[in-house]
Amino acid sequence: MPTPLSLDTLNAVDAKDFVAALGGIFEHSPWAAEAVVEARPFGSLQALLDAMVAAVRAAGPERQRALLAAHPDLAGKAARAGTLTAASTAEQASAGLDRLSEDEHAAFHRLNDAYQQKYGIPFIVCVRRHTKASILTQFERRLANDSATEHATALDEVFRIAALRLDQLVAAPDRLPLAGRLSTHVLDTHGGTPAKGIPLTLFEIGPGDARRVVVETVTNHDGRTDAPLIGGRPVPIGTYELVFAVGAYFTARGVPLADPPFLDTVPLRFSIAEAEGHYHVPLLVTPWSFSTYRGS
Amino acid sequence: MPTPLSLDTLNAVDAKDFVAALGGIFEHSPWAAEAVVEARPFGSLQALLDAMVAAVRAAGPERQRALLAAHPDLAGKAARAGTLTAASTAEQASAGLDRLSEDEHAAFHRLNDAYQQKYGIPFIVCVRRHTKASILTQFERRLANDSATEHATALDEVFRIAALRLDQLVAAPDRLPLAGRLSTHVLDTHGGTPAKGIPLTLFEIGPGDARRVVVETVTNHDGRTDAPLIGGRPVPIGTYELVFAVGAYFTARGVPLADPPFLDTVPLRFSIAEAEGHYHVPLLVTPWSFSTYRGS
Amino acid sequence: MPTPLSLDTLNAVDAKDFVAALGGIFEHSPWAAEAVVEARPFGSLQALLDAMVAAVRAAGPERQRALLAAHPDLAGKAARAGTLTAASTAEQASAGLDRLSEDEHAAFHRLNDAYQQKYGIPFIVCVRRHTKASILTQFERRLANDSATEHATALDEVFRIAALRLDQLVAAPDRLPLAGRLSTHVLDTHGGTPAKGIPLTLFEIGPGDARRVVVETVTNHDGRTDAPLIGGRPVPIGTYELVFAVGAYFTARGVPLADPPFLDTVPLRFSIAEAEGHYHVPLLVTPWSFSTYRGS
Amino acid sequence: MPTPLSLDTLNAVDAKDFVAALGGIFEHSPWAAEAVVEARPFGSLQALLDAMVAAVRAAGPERQRALLAAHPDLAGKAARAGTLTAASTAEQASAGLDRLSEDEHAAFHRLNDAYQQKYGIPFIVCVRRHTKASILTQFERRLANDSATEHATALDEVFRIAALRLDQLVAAPDRLPLAGRLSTHVLDTHGGTPAKGIPLTLFEIGPGDARRVVVETVTNHDGRTDAPLIGGRPVPIGTYELVFAVGAYFTARGVPLADPPFLDTVPLRFSIAEAEGHYHVPLLVTPWSFSTYRGS
Repeated sequence: MPTPLSLDTLNAVDAKDFVAALGGIFEHSPWAAEAVVEARPFGSLQALLDAMVAAVRAAGPERQRALLAAHPDLAGKAARAGTLTAASTAEQASAGLDRLSEDEHAAFHRLNDAYQQKYGIPFIVCVRRHTKASILTQFERRLANDSATEHATALDEVFRIAALRLDQLVAAPDRLPLAGRLSTHVLDTHGGTPAKGIPLTLFEIGPGDARRVVVETVTNHDGRTDAPLIGGRPVPIGTYELVFAVGAYFTARGVPLADPPFLDTVPLRFSIAEAEGHYHVPLLVTPWSFSTYRGS
Repeated sequence: MPTPLSLDTLNAVDAKDFVAALGGIFEHSPWAAEAVVEARPFGSLQALLDAMVAAVRAAGPERQRALLAAHPDLAGKAARAGTLTAASTAEQASAGLDRLSEDEHAAFHRLNDAYQQKYGIPFIVCVRRHTKASILTQFERRLANDSATEHATALDEVFRIAALRLDQLVAAPDRLPLAGRLSTHVLDTHGGTPAKGIPLTLFEIGPGDARRVVVETVTNHDGRTDAPLIGGRPVPIGTYELVFAVGAYFTARGVPLADPPFLDTVPLRFSIAEAEGHYHVPLLVTPWSFSTYRGS
Repeated sequence: MPTPLSLDTLNAVDAKDFVAALGGIFEHSPWAAEAVVEARPFGSLQALLDAMVAAVRAAGPERQRALLAAHPDLAGKAARAGTLTAASTAEQASAGLDRLSEDEHAAFHRLNDAYQQKYGIPFIVCVRRHTKASILTQFERRLANDSATEHATALDEVFRIAALRLDQLVAAPDRLPLAGRLSTHVLDTHGGTPAKGIPLTLFEIGPGDARRVVVETVTNHDGRTDAPLIGGRPVPIGTYELVFAVGAYFTARGVPLADPPFLDTVPLRFSIAEAEGHYHVPLLVTPWSFSTYRGS
Repeated sequence: MPTPLSLDTLNAVDAKDFVAALGGIFEHSPWAAEAVVEARPFGSLQALLDAMVAAVRAAGPERQRALLAAHPDLAGKAARAGTLTAASTAEQASAGLDRLSEDEHAAFHRLNDAYQQKYGIPFIVCVRRHTKASILTQFERRLANDSATEHATALDEVFRIAALRLDQLVAAPDRLPLAGRLSTHVLDTHGGTPAKGIPLTLFEIGPGDARRVVVETVTNHDGRTDAPLIGGRPVPIGTYELVFAVGAYFTARGVPLADPPFLDTVPLRFSIAEAEGHYHVPLLVTPWSFSTYRGS
C-alpha cells in the first residue's frame, strides 16, 4: 500500500495534481474530482467525500449511467486479462474473485450476462463488504429489481466503493466510518478463568460450504486475541465458522476428559449482516458444555 | 433381519440344531456352542452368553489363538471378494468399511499388514461400537501393545462381537446391556417454548472431516425427536455433528432476524466415548445465542 | 381427606343422597346439584361438571347473584369466627389466608369493604390457583372492572372452585384438567453428569418479599427430584425462589473452590402465570457459572 | 477526606513533620515512622511501605506485641465511647460495625472476650477487606489458631491496614496494589443487543441473610454501568446479591410477557474471596432464561 496523501497536501496542490490524485476514486471518472477542486479546502475526509458524492448525484442520469458503465464485470474478461484498474484488482481479490473454481466462473459469467442484458450496465457491488457467497446472493436478488431501483442501488454501491478508496488513499484527522469489527473471548467456566492459549481459526464459508481460512490465532492471558479477528475494515457480509481447539486446552490443564473428549474442536457458525457492525462472539466452555451469543 | 429364534426353542431343540443355530456366534468356531449344549436350559440370554464366554476362556491359548486367527481382515481381501460370513459382512458395512476410498483402503491395508506381522493374527475390533475414524484410531493405538495385552484385548473384542450377534439372533425375556442412546431436545429460549418443527441432521465425522448422514429428522411438539437419534444399539464411538436449521424456524415464527440471520444452521460437534452410554445433547437457542451441554 | 365417592355410586344413589353429596360444590347452593339429578347417569366427571356449570349459567342473574353473595369474605369475619364451610376453610388455608399478619388482615379488610361497596357481593377468587401475593394483585386489579365484567369474572372463579371441589370429592375414570406441574433438574456441567444429592428449597415469595417454604427436597441420581416440586394440583400463580445448595455439592465431589465459594446457595427467582401449566426450571451449574430457562 | 500529602513533600520535610504525618499508619505507634525517617528519600510509595513493614518486622516480639495490643476492639467499648482514632473509626464504619444490632453487638462482645482471653491481644483484621459476615467468620476461625500462628496472622493484618492507610494519606506516582473491582454487563440475548436502562442493585448479604444496599445504578447503552459496582478499593470478602429489574426492561421494549412475567427481578448471588481480585459478573437474559458466570 502506498503512503497515503495527506488531506492538507490535497488542499494545497495544483488543481491538476488534485485531480490526478483523486481521479480514480470513481472508476475511470476523473470528472468527479474536477467538480470539487474549486471547493477546497476541505476540513475533513468526510467533507471531501460528501462533496464528490454530491457532484455525482448532481451530474444527471446520463453521466451517472456512463459512470456505472465504466465499471468492469466482476470476475469478468477484464479481470482474466489483467486489464483492471489497480483499485478494482485489489477489491476483487479481497473477496477471492481472482481464485474462482470453474463452476463459480460459470456462475458469474451467467449472472453478468443476465444482468447486462436486463439493465445495460455491469453488476456493481462494493465487494470489500461481502464474501463471495454474499456477492452471489446479492447478484441473484438484485436481478429481481426494476431498472430505476437497480440504477439507484448501483449508485449507492459506487459511493461505498468511493468511500473505501478515499479512506485508503488519504490520511486525514478523521476516518470514514467504514470499519466493522469481529472479536472473540474464551471463558473457561470449568476453572473460572479466561482460557489462555486456545488455538482458534476463523473460516469464511463459501458456496457449497467450501471454507477458507481468514485468520488463525491463539487466545492470550485474558482469553481474547491480541488483535480483533477482523478489524479496521468492513467485516464482509456472509457466513463464518470460528473453531476453537478446547480439548487440547483442558488436557493441558490436567482436567480429566473422556476418550475421545466430549468436546474437542468446537465450531461456532454465525453470519455477519452489517459490514460496519461490531460483532463479539464469545465462547463459554467446560469439557461438557458450551455457549455463545452476540455480545458487545 | 431374519425372525429371531426364541430362547425357549434353543433350550428344547436337538444338540445339533442348537449348534447349527449358534455356531456363528464365534467366527468359524462352532465348538463354543458345542461346549455349552449340555448346560441347557439357560434361564436368560445373559446366562447363555456367560456360558459361551466361559467356554472360550477355558479353552486355552491355542484354541483361542485359532479363534482369533479365524477372523477376517477388516476391509481386507475376503471382504473385497465377498467371501465373509453374513455376520461379518453386516458388521463391516455398519461402520462403512464396505465403502472406503482408495486412500482409506490403502491405510487399512498397511495397518492390517503391520498388525499381522507383529501379532500373527488379524486385527479384531467390535466394529458396531465404532465409527470408521475410531476404528483407525484403535488400530494405530493397539499396534503399540505387547503381544499378551493385545491377545487379551482381541479376545475382549470377540466377546463384544459375540454378545451383539447373540442379542440379534435370539429373542429372550432379557436383552443384553448393549444399547446406548443419543437424543436431543431443542428449547426456544426466545419464546419460552419447546422448538417444534426444527429440521436437524446428524452427521458422523470421518477421517479428513468427511461427513456421512446418520439420520435426518425434525423436532416434534415437545422439541424432541419421535425416536432417539441413535437407540437400541451401541452408539458408535467417534465424532459427530448435529446440525439444526434454526433460521427457518424463527422466520416461520415471525421473529425479525438479521439478513442473513446471525444464526441459520447451528452445528454442535461432540464425540461419543462410551458406546453403551446415554448421551443427551440439547440445544437452547435464540436468534442471537445458543448453548449445549451433555444432559441426561 | 375423606375417601372420594365414586362416580358410579353417584349415578346410582337416591336423588336426595346425590344432592347431599354434591350440595357443597357450589357454596351454600344445593340447587345446582338438584338441577342435574335427573340427567344421570354421567359418563365422566367432566360431563357432570359441565352439566352443573350449564345449570348455573341457565339459572339467570338473580340466582347467580345469590350464589355469589353466598360466598364468605376472604380472610373475613366468618373465617376468624371459624364458621366457614369445610371446603372454604381448606381453600383459604391453602394460600395462607389463615395465617395473615395484622398488616395483611388490614389490607384484606380494606379491600373486602371496597369491593362489597362497589359490587354488592364478596370478592371471589379460586384461591387454590393463587399465592397470597397474587390474590392481593387480583383484588386490586378487579376493583377497576365495571359491574358486568366483574359479575362474569366472579362466576368464572366460582366454576373453577366447583371444578376443584368436584375433582377432590369424586373418584372417576377421568380427572379434570386442573393440575399444573413445577419440576427441576440439576446438571453439573463441570463434571458432565446429573448432580445428585443437591439439597434444594422452594420458597413462595409473599407481599414484602416474605418467604414461605413450599417444599424442601434433594436431587436424586438423575439430578431430578423424586416427585415434582408441585404436582397433581394447580401451581399457585405468583413468585417463587428455588434455592440450590451447590457449594456443599462441589465440596463433596472434591472440586477445589474459592473460600468462600463463588457460588454457594444459588437462588432462581421466577413467576408462575398459568396455574395449569407445566413449568420445568432446570439449573446448569459449575462452581463458576450457572444458567436456567423455562424448559419442558 | 483531607488532601493527600505528596511523597515529594514527605521526602523533604523535617523529621518531626514526617513522623507527625505518618505516625498513625501503625496504630498508636509512631516509632515505625521514626525508624525509617533517615532512609529518605523514598522513590515510591511501595518503597516507603516496605521500609516501614521491615522496621516493624525487625522490632522484635515485644514491640510487635505492644503494637498489636494498641489496637482497639472491633465494635468494642472505645468504638461505643467514640474514643477511636479517626482511621479506626472510618475503617470500622466501612464494614458497618458502627451500626450493629444488639445481637451482633453481643456476638462481637463474646468473641472479643474469648480472643483476649486466649491470646492476650485484641482481635485485629483489616476490616476494609471484609463484610461484616466475613469478619465474624474470620473471628470464629482464627480462634482455633495457636498463639504463634495468630501473632503472625495479626501482624499481617496490621500490614494490610497500614498499606491502606498509607495509600489514602500519600499522593505518589505509584499506587499500592490494593484495589479490586466488581463489574457487570447485561446482554439481551432475545434482541441480540446490550441491555440499556436496566435498573440494578447490589446488596451485601449479612449475618442471618440481612441485606444492605451497596449501590443502585442502571445499565448504559453498552449494557454496562458507567462506573464499576465496586472499584478503586478492596472488594470486601463476603456474599452479595446483584438484582436486575429485567421485567420492566422487556415490557418497555414491547416484548410480550406472561402475567406475571416468568422473570421479573433476577437475583444473582455470589461471593467474593479475593478482595484485590477483578470480578466480572455478567447477565445474559431473555424473558425465559438467564445465565451468569465469572468473567474477566
